[in-house]
Amino acid sequence: MTNYQIDCLQYANWSENIFKEMREGGLDAVHVTIAYHETFRETVLNMEQWNRWFEQFPSLIFQGTTGADVRLAKETNRTAIFFGFQNPSPIEDDIGLVQILHQLGARFMQLTYNNQSLLATGCYESYDAGLTRMGREVVKEMNRVGMVVDMSHSGEKSTLDAIEYSERPIAITHANPHNWHQALRNKSDTVMRELSNSGGMLGFSIYPHHLKGGTSCTIDSFCKMISDTANIMGIDNIGIGTDLCQNQPDSIVEWMRVGRWTKGIDYGEGTASNAGFPPMPTWYKDNRDFSNIANGLYKIGMTETEISKVMGNNWLNFYDNNFGAIK
Amino acid sequence: MTNYQIDCLQYANWSENIFKEMREGGLDAVHVTIAYHETFRETVLNMEQWNRWFEQFPSLIFQGTTGADVRLAKETNRTAIFFGFQNPSPIEDDIGLVQILHQLGARFMQLTYNNQSLLATGCYESYDAGLTRMGREVVKEMNRVGMVVDMSHSGEKSTLDAIEYSERPIAITHANPHNWHQALRNKSDTVMRELSNSGGMLGFSIYPHHLKGGTSCTIDSFCKMISDTANIMGIDNIGIGTDLCQNQPDSIVEWMRVGRWTKGIDYGEGTASNAGFPPMPTWYKDNRDFSNIANGLYKIGMTETEISKVMGNNWLNFYDNNFGAIK
Repeated sequence: MTNYQIDCLQYANWSENIFKEMREGGLDAVHVTIAYHETFRETVLNMEQWNRWFEQFPSLIFQGTTGADVRLAKETNRTAIFFGFQNPSPIEDDIGLVQILHQLGARFMQLTYNNQSLLATGCYESYDAGLTRMGREVVKEMNRVGMVVDMSHSGEKSTLDAIEYSERPIAITHANPHNWHQALRNKSDTVMRELSNSGGMLGFSIYPHHLKGGTSCTIDSFCKMISDTANIMGIDNIGIGTDLCQNQPDSIVEWMRVGRWTKGIDYGEGTASNAGFPPMPTWYKDNRDFSNIANGLYKIGMTETEISKVMGNNWLNFYDNNFGAIK
Repeated sequence: MTNYQIDCLQYANWSENIFKEMREGGLDAVHVTIAYHETFRETVLNMEQWNRWFEQFPSLIFQGTTGADVRLAKETNRTAIFFGFQNPSPIEDDIGLVQILHQLGARFMQLTYNNQSLLATGCYESYDAGLTRMGREVVKEMNRVGMVVDMSHSGEKSTLDAIEYSERPIAITHANPHNWHQALRNKSDTVMRELSNSGGMLGFSIYPHHLKGGTSCTIDSFCKMISDTANIMGIDNIGIGTDLCQNQPDSIVEWMRVGRWTKGIDYGEGTASNAGFPPMPTWYKDNRDFSNIANGLYKIGMTETEISKVMGNNWLNFYDNNFGAIK
């Protein structure tokens, strides 16, 4: 069996250097966020920037759209880059843009980012009414074309609604269990069970606000959490989604939180006194540390087969089944 | 040898009925215009409409992007639809949109539609300065990704510039020889020779303003013109691009001519007293008449091999070589 290594969420300040680090870390595929609050046209501008990187660095990266591209990446010593959105802003109010953006390579779309969207409720709203009328239509369209519903930043009811309403498995690309660290964004046992029962995937995040102990969280604690979650969700429905925001200036975390929806300031998971990007744990500074997770899992007693599933083979299986129209 | 039938330019008021007529006429592929003056976003809206037609009528049509799709169309008794623009308005002032629109399936783009564009000079301007600075950059980018330069509505110098500057063959998808009918849009012997010498293609138009005798032009005269052009250009660089504008209201020909560039009126190839769409010749009312051309060519003595080249095999060969990145 071949072992694939996939990081199913990053939002780094990308550069040739980071692409080289992806290769040093042995990443066969990375799901990159290309929109937080961008309109359709702004999202296309971000795709244009990626097209330029693909043209400039063809020996390091290329655009991935299928599971087969992950295998091609490994065979050719490159990293396949998959596009995703953390908000449905790229489709604006036009369901036809779901297919257009899928044609351009988008493979994941969150229905919300913290706030209420046209489709569902974000985790920071005080009341979660679940999927909206348009939300149900868009989920159906995403199912049809093969764009994965991602509920990483959604409220509990919206998430359970999406799991139930979606005819194909959904993903929570980057979050951890609430039972381990009580962050608002981390997920309840109920969500994790329903997600797993429906064939969905959870990607474990290393963003410090999602970690027990924050930046000081140990690799041992992180890996034990993964092992405990395997006991709840099973070993086949979990993977990694580091949420690595490498080299980003703090203006970017403000953009992520505030977009253009307020003239004020919102600290999201941070606070006024700790408003910027939190420092990453010492054991995860960049893509070259990806194997630290595998080593940590080995140390706490996971088998090699289990580790390979967590490190990428589960995501590859999910990519194989969910990135195209149903045949 | 298999005979393929390709119409390399239509702008009909499409409907299920017209798609059925494409099947009855045995069209394996049709290049459809999806933008005259549309912005990027408006062009994407037109693509969304086509996506809906592809979803609604999968047994009649599907989107074609390669020569292989023409073969697939014949094998499955469907018509492959290829997208093109009669103006560079969809890329606005952003060269990055060339690749984005190619990713969405665009395979032909005219550098101008009658007027000066950001890229080149249209055939109705009084002075043609040739390719602009941006025009040269865009031609290079179109060459790179595999989007064909179409000079059907361009001035003579711009057309010759494009032939010379383009590293890949270009096309004039819908026009006739000026030596046969002195329409402003029809092409000089010089253009036809340079086009052919560089591997480019000319598609013969049945739009009455391009025909000797207009609507009254006989199939015999049309076919003799094709045969005479073969003597100038060779038999391998000519095909059909009917310019069929079936079922369009006259408001559409006004949109084609006027877009949003004037508050006045421009009659293009028409006149104040004959402003609307001219009636098509009796021998070409719709797609079901496509074989009339083959029969007409047979009647004037063309061989079956020559006829199959003109009716589609030359275009297929051109599609095979020009719709993707150079390997």
